Amino acid sequence: MTRVVVDVMLKPEILDPQGEAVVNALPRLGASGVSSVRIGKRIELEFAEGTDESAMQEQATNIADKLLANPVIEDFTIRLTDQAEPTG
Amino acid sequence: MTRVVVDVMLKPEILDPQGEAVVNALPRLGASGVSSVRIGKRIELEFAEGTDESAMQEQATNIADKLLANPVIEDFTIRLTDQAEPTG
Repeated sequence: MTRVVVDVMLKPEILDPQGEAVVNALPRLGASGVSSVRIGKRIELEFAEGTDESAMQEQATNIADKLLANPVIEDFTIRLTDQAEPTG
Repeated sequence: MTRVVVDVMLKPEILDPQGEAVVNALPRLGASGVSSVRIGKRIELEFAEGTDESAMQEQATNIADKLLANPVIEDFTIRLTDQAEPTG
C-alpha cells in the first residue's frame, strides 16, 4: 500500500503559541536543551491500489493546497512512503 | 542545526472523524482515488547546539511519551533530521 504523507507546518515567521506552551512546560519534565518547538499537522493519505505515483503526487498537492493547509500562514511538504513507518 | 521530529498519530483502531471529514470533502475537489485519510500531529523539537544525538533521542522520547502523545489512543515515532525539510 503506497501512502502519501503531507506535513503542514506554520511558516517560520508565524508565532506558534502551542509550541511555546510546550517549551515552557519542559523544565517541569526535567528536559533541558530544547530551544524551540513547532507544532504542525501530519496527514496520511491512502490511495486505492494501482494509482500511479505521479497521479498520487499531483492529487496530494492539490488536496494539500486547497483543503489541508492555509497557504497564508502554512507551508506543506509531500512525500510518498511505501508502508507505515515504524512506531516507537 | 539538528532537529528531532516527533510524529503523533492515532492508533489504527481509533476512529478519526477529522480524517473522515476530509475524505468526504474530496469529491467536491475533484480528487478521486483516496481511500483513507488519517490526521495527526508533527512536532519539531530544536535542541541547543552541541547536544549529542543519543541525548536528543532520549529526551525526545521522554517528552513525546509524557507531553506530546496520549499513549492510550496515540502512537508516536521519533527521527533526527539534519536540517529543515524542503517545502513544497
